[in-house]
Amino acid sequence: MQRQKYIFFLHLHHWRLTTNVLWNHGDVMRYVHFSPDGQQRLLGVLQGPTITSLGDFSLEALLAAGTDLTAFANASIGAGTKYPVDSVTWLPPLTRPGKIICVGLNYADHTKESKFEPQTYPTFFPRFDSSLIGHLAPMIRPLVSDSLDFEGELAVILGRGGRHISRAHALDCVAGYSIFNDGSVREYQFKAPQWTIGKNFDGTGAFGPTFVTADELPAGGAGLKLETRLNGKVVQTANTSDLVFDVASLIAIISEAITLAPGDVIVSGTPAGVGWARDPKLIMRHGDVCEVEIEGLGVLKNIVQDEQPTN
Amino acid sequence: MQRQKYIFFLHLHHWRLTTNVLWNHGDVMRYVHFSPDGQQRLLGVLQGPTITSLGDFSLEALLAAGTDLTAFANASIGAGTKYPVDSVTWLPPLTRPGKIICVGLNYADHTKESKFEPQTYPTFFPRFDSSLIGHLAPMIRPLVSDSLDFEGELAVILGRGGRHISRAHALDCVAGYSIFNDGSVREYQFKAPQWTIGKNFDGTGAFGPTFVTADELPAGGAGLKLETRLNGKVVQTANTSDLVFDVASLIAIISEAITLAPGDVIVSGTPAGVGWARDPKLIMRHGDVCEVEIEGLGVLKNIVQDEQPTN
Repeated sequence: MQRQKYIFFLHLHHWRLTTNVLWNHGDVMRYVHFSPDGQQRLLGVLQGPTITSLGDFSLEALLAAGTDLTAFANASIGAGTKYPVDSVTWLPPLTRPGKIICVGLNYADHTKESKFEPQTYPTFFPRFDSSLIGHLAPMIRPLVSDSLDFEGELAVILGRGGRHISRAHALDCVAGYSIFNDGSVREYQFKAPQWTIGKNFDGTGAFGPTFVTADELPAGGAGLKLETRLNGKVVQTANTSDLVFDVASLIAIISEAITLAPGDVIVSGTPAGVGWARDPKLIMRHGDVCEVEIEGLGVLKNIVQDEQPTN
Repeated sequence: MQRQKYIFFLHLHHWRLTTNVLWNHGDVMRYVHFSPDGQQRLLGVLQGPTITSLGDFSLEALLAAGTDLTAFANASIGAGTKYPVDSVTWLPPLTRPGKIICVGLNYADHTKESKFEPQTYPTFFPRFDSSLIGHLAPMIRPLVSDSLDFEGELAVILGRGGRHISRAHALDCVAGYSIFNDGSVREYQFKAPQWTIGKNFDGTGAFGPTFVTADELPAGGAGLKLETRLNGKVVQTANTSDLVFDVASLIAIISEAITLAPGDVIVSGTPAGVGWARDPKLIMRHGDVCEVEIEGLGVLKNIVQDEQPTN
């Protein structure tokens, strides 16, 4: 009897663990932008296999207004329509962030494999929002180059901004975190001294699946395991504690120059293992499945698809 | 009598010429964003020493809607409130463009003075809108570096977008032109492999004074004299026909990778003469007056001001 109870408890515990791994929920509020019909853009909360709509709101607007997201969600969730996750289109957590500031060469092993010297100041480059896609959207391998590469990264979303933010106060500005796959068209990245074009092809900036508020994660998003998988095979593995410039430092350094604002996104850099640095090069192909998983944040999954010629 | 008439005609002609030079009007419609009170943002038309309000509209929204600007202005101008130009605050022609894509190394003489090899592909870098300022606004020399430099440039504002735009159709996408002073904090521009931070300090991206529709200028904004003056002394002089990648090529090349949209801005690059390439270096100081003039577009004037420490 005693033994049966123990086995039951073990089963229950296993079920809870499995569910947590599969859906990454529990008590953590995971915000998503989704479309139930391919047209509307709704804000919702992911709960197990269900997205509960919070209505026609945007994270951009709620962050700009300084809304307490947890209170907002708790007030709206009871009356929200529920959608099975596999019936919706996932959209990026923010579709039109104010700024998307990406960080290059921010893991020492990636700097080394990329044949750059260790950096004493962060390397920043932009994403334009025209390149963003959501979870499960096709990641587009362009017509003009077959050199599309993956880069798994921790994305930081700001809830407060300012200028000359000290490192000590920087984390107060973070609203939450998400995952980014900074798809890079390498041939175009290196056609000129600046990487802008290779980092901004349409359909290459995967962002999501969810937005998790900062209080649900360790300070600065540090200490989280990051793993990128291509067709199930691990191609990048790192820990966010290995960032050369951590999240607080990035905010402090950027704000020396630039006024940051709620809704700005900092994409914190990728670790070693990118396909372009391998010998032979590992290049993504049509049909490849690329996943980026960050502990506590879930799995961002996209399938590579060749761009279709228009005419 | 005959002679007096002729002299009167000469005077009239001289007056018209002078007026044209001073106010760059005539029949050309010059759109401005301005604030009469430091709070409202109004769209207006510059006519001689007067700005006539077209009301609470934005060029961003009108371009996105595909509005015929000339028809719109003609319909609204009669009833518009008039403001003396020296009573208003000038704002950038677009305050929140979708994308601001800047071009580096796009005049051969500037590429050479910057010690870069001639480029076979354009160099693109971003401006975030947080760095934009209007005509006559102070251009801010930051606390953290005294290396603020000028870069006079032709700015191209799109009225149509798309992907894979052919060079032959590219100029159909141009709504109009303006002037840009791509103020660059050189020490920060070169702290890392990417120039982003040095090109994005608050208060360094001067844009204006007006927006002139493409039909008022030569195709592609080509053949226009460009001159930058620092405290009245000419420091850059060029012709927009000397762009390595002309406006049509830039649109075609960017759109190979990126979907362009109405309201996007392409800042087409600066010619030789920048302060940082000189020996000794010419660095702007508090109180310096920097002007960029482009034929047919007017004069964009800003006064350098040291950033004030906050508390």
